[in-house]
Amino acid sequence: MVAAAGPGLSADADARALAAVEHTLARRARGDIGFFDLPEQGDALEDVERVLAGIAADIDTMVVFGIGGSSLGPRALVSALTPPWSWLAPADGRRRRVLFCDNIDPVTVAGLFATIDVRRCVFNVVTKSGATAETCAQLLLLLERLGAVVGERVAQHLIITTDPSRGALRALASAHHLPSLRVPANVGGRFSVLSPVGLLPAGFAGVDLRALLRGAAAMRERVLRNHADNPALFFARHMHHQHMVAGRPMLVMMAYVDGLYDTADWFRQLWAESLGKALATDGRAIHVGPTPIAARGATDQHSQLQLYAEGPDDKAYCMLTVDDRGADLTMPAHPWAAAHDELAYLQGRGLGELLDAELRGTMASLRRRGRPVGIVRLAGQDAASVGELIMLLEAATAFAGPLYGVDPFDQPGVEEAKRLAFAALGRPGFSDGAVGVDVATILTSDPAHVR
Amino acid sequence: MVAAAGPGLSADADARALAAVEHTLARRARGDIGFFDLPEQGDALEDVERVLAGIAADIDTMVVFGIGGSSLGPRALVSALTPPWSWLAPADGRRRRVLFCDNIDPVTVAGLFATIDVRRCVFNVVTKSGATAETCAQLLLLLERLGAVVGERVAQHLIITTDPSRGALRALASAHHLPSLRVPANVGGRFSVLSPVGLLPAGFAGVDLRALLRGAAAMRERVLRNHADNPALFFARHMHHQHMVAGRPMLVMMAYVDGLYDTADWFRQLWAESLGKALATDGRAIHVGPTPIAARGATDQHSQLQLYAEGPDDKAYCMLTVDDRGADLTMPAHPWAAAHDELAYLQGRGLGELLDAELRGTMASLRRRGRPVGIVRLAGQDAASVGELIMLLEAATAFAGPLYGVDPFDQPGVEEAKRLAFAALGRPGFSDGAVGVDVATILTSDPAHVR
Repeated sequence: MVAAAGPGLSADADARALAAVEHTLARRARGDIGFFDLPEQGDALEDVERVLAGIAADIDTMVVFGIGGSSLGPRALVSALTPPWSWLAPADGRRRRVLFCDNIDPVTVAGLFATIDVRRCVFNVVTKSGATAETCAQLLLLLERLGAVVGERVAQHLIITTDPSRGALRALASAHHLPSLRVPANVGGRFSVLSPVGLLPAGFAGVDLRALLRGAAAMRERVLRNHADNPALFFARHMHHQHMVAGRPMLVMMAYVDGLYDTADWFRQLWAESLGKALATDGRAIHVGPTPIAARGATDQHSQLQLYAEGPDDKAYCMLTVDDRGADLTMPAHPWAAAHDELAYLQGRGLGELLDAELRGTMASLRRRGRPVGIVRLAGQDAASVGELIMLLEAATAFAGPLYGVDPFDQPGVEEAKRLAFAALGRPGFSDGAVGVDVATILTSDPAHVR
Repeated sequence: MVAAAGPGLSADADARALAAVEHTLARRARGDIGFFDLPEQGDALEDVERVLAGIAADIDTMVVFGIGGSSLGPRALVSALTPPWSWLAPADGRRRRVLFCDNIDPVTVAGLFATIDVRRCVFNVVTKSGATAETCAQLLLLLERLGAVVGERVAQHLIITTDPSRGALRALASAHHLPSLRVPANVGGRFSVLSPVGLLPAGFAGVDLRALLRGAAAMRERVLRNHADNPALFFARHMHHQHMVAGRPMLVMMAYVDGLYDTADWFRQLWAESLGKALATDGRAIHVGPTPIAARGATDQHSQLQLYAEGPDDKAYCMLTVDDRGADLTMPAHPWAAAHDELAYLQGRGLGELLDAELRGTMASLRRRGRPVGIVRLAGQDAASVGELIMLLEAATAFAGPLYGVDPFDQPGVEEAKRLAFAALGRPGFSDGAVGVDVATILTSDPAHVR
């Protein structure tokens, strides 16, 4: 533990931090927030296993139609815990792949349907509310396609993941006897990764769900203690909040494991949507919220490190890595390499060894320049470790809310844009507000248009 | 053009802006910076076409081994200008796919070799200096693999893209008669997308290279004029610099076209590495540089919009879109949808129409909250338009350098981390500096380790 000294580390700050934990524990006790309890979510895991068992053996691809938490959480699990590049070659009978379609660009959606073989796919349509416009749009197109290709056998290719009782998708699932899974009412989209939202795609791809939940439960025991050694509180305070209040508006989560980049991307939603708020819980207008940035090492050393090292001191850094990368790849000796220093020094070294050396070099360089650097080290790239990491970061988010003085479980700021979009689309009941907007514009193909 | 009023828009600022263009034109005239001239780069396009013609017909996959500009530029072109999801199914005889391996995680690299069929691949190893550690490491592993699989026929599966005369890779290409391409000496990695670095992978994937370069040349004629209607100067000043000097350290480039997200990611390197600098050109320590953030609409409305709308007013926004998305996908009427408002209003509407409405809604919502928003609109998602966009953003970067008072064409800040990494690795000649570094640490699997 960092000694209690320096800015934001006074006894007062200690008391506020412990109050943040206390506040969160109380909300959990009231049943307000459900994510802590997902590791023992009653029959949810059995529901998932039953739906998985119902998927025909000749189906090799799951397509997830969902946006935001409905996509980011499952993608984090699949990226971290299944072999890389497996989307390239699923048809060898050994692997199943999961594809994520999380946008409504017509080029993307048409291209997907033109490329996949619908008969070998199961589609998982995920929206907690059952009303998400993008997901409903995808569903309409999917229903048409399924009707054309599989006819009456829709229920063998379509799974619905939504609210247990409310919304259009719950009603459709019931009316048409579709396999379905439930997102608990007290678990928001961005906290839903350990609910069936994440478990079904991960389970389809072969992830050990019990180990994942066991890791999450183990971490939960450590983060639900109102104590200074709480690692989630440590993360919230000492890896971030103290640096943010000292004038750094950004936090960079830089994964030195390719498979964990999508966890950093998932965290980007978790942190931004939970902590970016106009109003404090006491009603004051405060407009707070750190900007989370996902980065990847060593790749982003060749893109962002120049800025990180020499630019303004406006970021805190949190590195993500694993202590055991599994089998390393040894760079071989090769007759072409011997004559060239640029190649020769690498021979006999491990690729992971090089990556770890780069991580150490980058951290040292940033520290020498006085930039705040933290690191979260997983034991390995395995389900239990990823479960630990997810619970750590979710709890840290919950605790960071009270540190900033905001409610980390609402998202009032996204409604206006939706309403204005519906108005632009002429959806009945959404005619308020003029959507015309004057913005600086460049038309690249028109020399006369810069305004 | 925005009227000359408001902060940073004085006559003085106008004069400084025009001086920035003047300064850039002078450096181009001296031969200092080469990217403006890539659209007519002598025989480079012929070189690329000759190498492409030499690739055997049964090769369907190009793997690019490169990092930073060696990967980000070509990926931007391939994503923008080839069908989405084409990496899923190349083997139908109609499509060729390009895969990018831009990191050295041993899980990623081993997984790649375990998944692809090396006999049907051509590998493009790209490093301007010929010394990039990550790329040299990949090359060693590749040489071993090629030796095992294709034996003496290495030159049919390996292409080198590097400096015209210097470095280990140029020497290897010459000594072993490998097909090779040249990165002009006065074009830095992050400005190399229109050199063979980008042209070869794009051409392999079927991009119309002549249209791409024609678009870039057309935009160049507009951005090389020392005049207020210069769109690159407009971008640099009015979409960014004026907001940055007004206290907003971040700029979000949010693509409402899936295929342009990787252009935003390429821009992230371009802007960060060019403008994030410790020293001004006059030697003063200034530590400047805006942080570029790549985002995707509508997806990130469900991840970042809460923060963008309600959080601190610390960002400027630049939306990217196309005026003509091509054929839209119409959401069909479906008997299951009629009874549900959440689905019914979408029937008969276009997917692109919905996406455009969301773009307008998001811009209007941000503007209502006083956030600076700009938009760059391409005519379409075609090679000429993408060429225009690339030249626009490269020129804007060149002009922004002098606005910030820094040299946009160097990157002194990344050397230290490299040196420290080599020291950690024990590379001869790199023993200076202790690499041990004390950072805040969480070991997720060890309850005793939070420090």
